[in-house]
Amino acid sequence: MEIEFLGTGAGSPSKTRNVTAIALKLLAECNSIWLFDVGEGTQHQILKTNIRPRKVNKIFITHLHGDHIFGLPGFLSSRSFQGGEQMGPLTIYGPKGIENYVRTSLQVSQTKLTYKVNFVEIKEEGTLFEDDHFKVTCQKLDHRITCFGYRVEEKDYPGELLVDKLREQQIPSGPLYGRLKAGEVVTLEDGRVIDGKDFIGEAKKGRTVTILGDTRQIASVAELAQDADVLVHESTFGKDEARLAHNYYHSTCVQAAEVAKEARVQKLLLTHISARYVGYLAQHLENDAQKVFENTKVVKDFYVEDVEFRK
Amino acid sequence: MEIEFLGTGAGSPSKTRNVTAIALKLLAECNSIWLFDVGEGTQHQILKTNIRPRKVNKIFITHLHGDHIFGLPGFLSSRSFQGGEQMGPLTIYGPKGIENYVRTSLQVSQTKLTYKVNFVEIKEEGTLFEDDHFKVTCQKLDHRITCFGYRVEEKDYPGELLVDKLREQQIPSGPLYGRLKAGEVVTLEDGRVIDGKDFIGEAKKGRTVTILGDTRQIASVAELAQDADVLVHESTFGKDEARLAHNYYHSTCVQAAEVAKEARVQKLLLTHISARYVGYLAQHLENDAQKVFENTKVVKDFYVEDVEFRK
Repeated sequence: MEIEFLGTGAGSPSKTRNVTAIALKLLAECNSIWLFDVGEGTQHQILKTNIRPRKVNKIFITHLHGDHIFGLPGFLSSRSFQGGEQMGPLTIYGPKGIENYVRTSLQVSQTKLTYKVNFVEIKEEGTLFEDDHFKVTCQKLDHRITCFGYRVEEKDYPGELLVDKLREQQIPSGPLYGRLKAGEVVTLEDGRVIDGKDFIGEAKKGRTVTILGDTRQIASVAELAQDADVLVHESTFGKDEARLAHNYYHSTCVQAAEVAKEARVQKLLLTHISARYVGYLAQHLENDAQKVFENTKVVKDFYVEDVEFRK
Repeated sequence: MEIEFLGTGAGSPSKTRNVTAIALKLLAECNSIWLFDVGEGTQHQILKTNIRPRKVNKIFITHLHGDHIFGLPGFLSSRSFQGGEQMGPLTIYGPKGIENYVRTSLQVSQTKLTYKVNFVEIKEEGTLFEDDHFKVTCQKLDHRITCFGYRVEEKDYPGELLVDKLREQQIPSGPLYGRLKAGEVVTLEDGRVIDGKDFIGEAKKGRTVTILGDTRQIASVAELAQDADVLVHESTFGKDEARLAHNYYHSTCVQAAEVAKEARVQKLLLTHISARYVGYLAQHLENDAQKVFENTKVVKDFYVEDVEFRK
């Protein structure tokens, strides 16, 4: 599980930061990549990475401001070009209006995709998607227009049956193994009593990543981010600009850190950095946030966070 | 008058060529820049040039395929951000549908521009625009969807009144100068007869640039390009791919050269180069075209053609 930042700027592209797009790479987990927002030029950024557009099968849009969606029609078109015949479908989750925007763009440009696009326009907060590996929930943020944050929870990995250990103790294979794996206590033909729990390896806790769209500091986010391994939070303004942040429906770096602390996350990644903060000024955002929440990083375009299992 | 190529690729962006956009820089002539097509990432390309978005006051769209229009909403939005208060209006010319696309994109993203955008959806071939400096005409091409080529004609510059020469011959200034400038023959008080034509400098012929959208080779284009200083023509395919070019509604490099020759233009610039033609392969396109029309160049992103007055 990796998070690759394809665009970390705010509002307009600059020479150093493109507008927002984030790739959650789940190749080992489910052979998929999910995008969170697709600002203009996302497909250009992808050309500089090892991301294959065909692997992208879910796109989550936080809100409909142009710097978060104007790359969507182009990305969908190019995925079609590069795809060959057997291109899998793709689902786009987002606020009401996203389907109209994408369909109008494809229709006006007479773009015929080689694959199916499903739209899920979000009607209410809660669970958006769940399968054997992942659960995705969403929650409304506090922005000028409807904007969502997304929590991606990986399911826990149960411990595996320790087959080598069973063999070592000359426990014969067969349907018995299934019962032991289920944690049952089993009596063997030779009279030995075996507790399955003794032959199951350590379970691994699934990882959780919370990715927010643009937002003011908002208390309820602590729930969406609760105990996450990584929280991705916007940081459009510096620590002394709380009033500006409020007026423009954004957050300061320190407000983001306060949310991270309250939610007891493991790591905070700050993005959506204004073009005013170039070079060492972006470092200031990081330093100021670290005074509140130490494990904070201001990310740049193409930064990759490897989300590890907890020890 | 300069032509700056912001994107010279076909279909999808590649590492070396962005999708189509061309800037006609008329700063000395009328303090304006006109764009021809605005593929995705055009605003990103502009960041690498000296083009100021506020100077762009006309945009001509050749056709509605995504690689020619998906950068338009983002460009318009960023022009708004960068503009300050006194941002002038902008007019977009193009096929029917362009207004719906732009308005939907701006509306869904709740983008409020700080300036007015006018739309001229083209109903028929002919003159689109004319003022004291320029005339723009358009003509339908032969592409899969409605597609236009544009001819930009600069008006001739009349010769200027040679005031120094008049003074040398001690011809007194006054309303007389106006009559001489108009080419009249005038009798002075001292009896001398002066022919205005002897005191008017050389006229300069205005320059003509013809910029085509995607098209098959089409005979009628010779009229749109007739005697142009520069013809910008697509060259999606190589010389041996006439059948492919026909099937996909595009041209080969040699077909473009044939059009240039027939139209007796001064120079041919080939663009819309497929990603298959990298490095020396693009050079082949140029060499093959030059066998038919010598003054041909395959352009790259950021190439600037200085369109000079004819000697």
